[in-house]
Amino acid sequence: MSQQTKFLLNEDQMPKAWYNLQADFPQPLPAVLHPGTMQPVGPDDLAPLFPMSLIQQEVTTEREVEIPEPVRDVYRLWRPAPLYRAHGLEKALGTCAKIYYKYEGVSPAGSHKPNTAVPQAFFNKQAGVKRLVTETGAGQWGTSLAFAGAHYGLEVEVFQVRVSYDQKPYRRAMMETYGARCVASPSNETVYGRSVLAKHPDHRGSLGIAISEAVELAVQRDDTKYALGSVLNHVMLHQTIIGLESMQQMAMADTWPDVVVGCTGGGSNFAGMAFPFIGHGLRGGPKPRIVAVEPAACPSLTRGKYAYDFGDTAGMTPLTKMHTLGAQFTPPGFHAGGLRYHGMAPMVSHAKELGLLEAVAYDQVACFAAGVLFARAEGIVPAPEANHAVKGAIEEALRCKREGKAETILFNLSGHGHFDMASYQKYFAGELTDETYDEAELAMALSGLPSVPEPV
Amino acid sequence: MSQQTKFLLNEDQMPKAWYNLQADFPQPLPAVLHPGTMQPVGPDDLAPLFPMSLIQQEVTTEREVEIPEPVRDVYRLWRPAPLYRAHGLEKALGTCAKIYYKYEGVSPAGSHKPNTAVPQAFFNKQAGVKRLVTETGAGQWGTSLAFAGAHYGLEVEVFQVRVSYDQKPYRRAMMETYGARCVASPSNETVYGRSVLAKHPDHRGSLGIAISEAVELAVQRDDTKYALGSVLNHVMLHQTIIGLESMQQMAMADTWPDVVVGCTGGGSNFAGMAFPFIGHGLRGGPKPRIVAVEPAACPSLTRGKYAYDFGDTAGMTPLTKMHTLGAQFTPPGFHAGGLRYHGMAPMVSHAKELGLLEAVAYDQVACFAAGVLFARAEGIVPAPEANHAVKGAIEEALRCKREGKAETILFNLSGHGHFDMASYQKYFAGELTDETYDEAELAMALSGLPSVPEPV
Repeated sequence: MSQQTKFLLNEDQMPKAWYNLQADFPQPLPAVLHPGTMQPVGPDDLAPLFPMSLIQQEVTTEREVEIPEPVRDVYRLWRPAPLYRAHGLEKALGTCAKIYYKYEGVSPAGSHKPNTAVPQAFFNKQAGVKRLVTETGAGQWGTSLAFAGAHYGLEVEVFQVRVSYDQKPYRRAMMETYGARCVASPSNETVYGRSVLAKHPDHRGSLGIAISEAVELAVQRDDTKYALGSVLNHVMLHQTIIGLESMQQMAMADTWPDVVVGCTGGGSNFAGMAFPFIGHGLRGGPKPRIVAVEPAACPSLTRGKYAYDFGDTAGMTPLTKMHTLGAQFTPPGFHAGGLRYHGMAPMVSHAKELGLLEAVAYDQVACFAAGVLFARAEGIVPAPEANHAVKGAIEEALRCKREGKAETILFNLSGHGHFDMASYQKYFAGELTDETYDEAELAMALSGLPSVPEPV
Repeated sequence: MSQQTKFLLNEDQMPKAWYNLQADFPQPLPAVLHPGTMQPVGPDDLAPLFPMSLIQQEVTTEREVEIPEPVRDVYRLWRPAPLYRAHGLEKALGTCAKIYYKYEGVSPAGSHKPNTAVPQAFFNKQAGVKRLVTETGAGQWGTSLAFAGAHYGLEVEVFQVRVSYDQKPYRRAMMETYGARCVASPSNETVYGRSVLAKHPDHRGSLGIAISEAVELAVQRDDTKYALGSVLNHVMLHQTIIGLESMQQMAMADTWPDVVVGCTGGGSNFAGMAFPFIGHGLRGGPKPRIVAVEPAACPSLTRGKYAYDFGDTAGMTPLTKMHTLGAQFTPPGFHAGGLRYHGMAPMVSHAKELGLLEAVAYDQVACFAAGVLFARAEGIVPAPEANHAVKGAIEEALRCKREGKAETILFNLSGHGHFDMASYQKYFAGELTDETYDEAELAMALSGLPSVPEPV
């Protein structure tokens, strides 16, 4: 009899509600501040950007938020997602640890991003919105929103960071295949974009600038809203389906994780896996160690400041308290494009401050080495972002080996690397190096954080 | 209550045996001929190329061939594969037809190819083989064999057609990620490769040349065997898991196809879907129409000759009777690289001659248009090869609409297009045209077919 490797749920076991960690936080999240008044925002302040249903999800402290049936219908295209026992990796490492991973690369976009793109499109459609505008870096999020928009008949416009727009035309082709319009940012289509181009006609763009452009357009037009692929509370909420499914699958495997590992950029795939386990622990269940793995070249959790900051470069978004490298910080050009963001999700940051999780940072060459080891042992080629989670899990497994502990390690493999083989090509050619940021630039970005009165 | 879209089997419903259409053919397959003697080959003649277990599968007329448990273990990484009702596509077409598709893009390589790569690697490993050598064009097959080789600890060496090696480095990176060695063909590593390079130092390569190189190496070394990703009987056999699963899923959906559609290059994904349905019909079950869709630029079934021909350019392989455009025919450079082969699988060809299937050819621009329509309606971006099947299914659905018939159409979506977005990019830029072959070249290739005595 062979060892069981895959743990698959039936469709009727797919969760019917998302889990909201705000219900179980021992202390509430710090308030969100208005960028003009620096006072706490109310729901109406956010109404130009999001439909009221999503704003309610942003602030609710209800523990469960129902997943509407039409959203579950689309989720069923690829969910429930499989969870695997990594027998091959365990053997390759010679560890006594048991390693499990949840695989989110089975979605049509190849990552976890559609988990939130679909409900965001659904709730906007329900609110009568005609068009969604967003930003994308490498293109995973733009692709996912384009996919969701195509399903619900919404127009989707994506501001793609210029350097990615030029260097990764395949991602753009994918968005266009789904019917989205893709514009290089900075662009001439917004006041802010034009102001950047006036000063720097050849500007390569950044996620912060692209967010500013998307927000500007959304605010201008009544039929248009903004969508964000990470950071916000309702995005974390939607991603919890990852962890909720995983909890059922760990029970199927007749075990429970001692360590839960995920990679963090904005924080959404990590939160999606970790929050249900954290909440379960806060409510009296077992408390696994929760490990967030971030790129050493953009280390918001391990090197950033926990402070109020803007989400974008122009300072148009509300201010949130988060671990940040400063909104003016430009991450170096490493290959895990989905992890290149100056800030960390407020909920993840809050959990870190409360001691509910640990954070660690790894360089990219080591992460690619981990990804190659994983691909040969398990058969799936991970995305560069997911390689960070693989690296984190491997380090935990090697610790178990040293300590002789047969712990259970669970990590989230957030996406496949089929769009990222150029990075692997560079790795094999020996052309990949560890990117580093400039310490002086980081210090300057941190010193430029907005000064705000601490809200009551 | 929502309409059911996805039909998913439990792991214990995954077939335990492949289906062999040779058991049900009303007339047996024509013999395979030795390239030297032009006489029917025996198993020993094939022994330098394949392990005896695969040679037995090549010639057996047993109806069922057991899938070994270790192969099923690896299949479980992505199988059973989902079958979907294409509600979105039906709506977009306004057809009264019911359209279903089986999705093989869920494998780690993104296509159906691992269905045969895994058992081929397994049976070779079992026979004590240390190394597999093969060829690849666009790279799907090379990737799949690299994946399977990594699992069983076999060395894999891939001769990749030079033009693809240069133009598609990402596919090469994928093979290297799985630990395979990839060589541009024609190469200096074989006598035949050197002879081609001596005449044409800048030769762009072809699948036929790459096969000759791989076969030459396999024959030379005792510890090395050859593996082919399509055409051969045992490859068709392994792929029947597609159709066998689909039959169970059609029963779950409480219907049965009136038409079964697949795309054909070498024939394996088509055979995998169609053969179980053909056999079921031959044994007294319902007989759906079986439609093979091929590219108009490489139309072996619709324009080729049914004759004995070589599988490679150098004339080193055994001769099989098949629909062929001539082993010296070079298909033009259209984007469905997996369909660029001069010959058709002998079993598919035989079925065509027996009137068990129909064939139709479409141009590539129309196939891309079909793929884009499908992506927006169903959420999955198909591979350029699979676009041919999509096009075929759409044409059947539109016929149903014209005729007012509510037929059930089933097609095989053999892979996703994540590696092929450059082709979509060209399509959107209006740079994609319908490739055509030179009629004079085809006539010359057909006139050069080997003259063989018809075997008894």
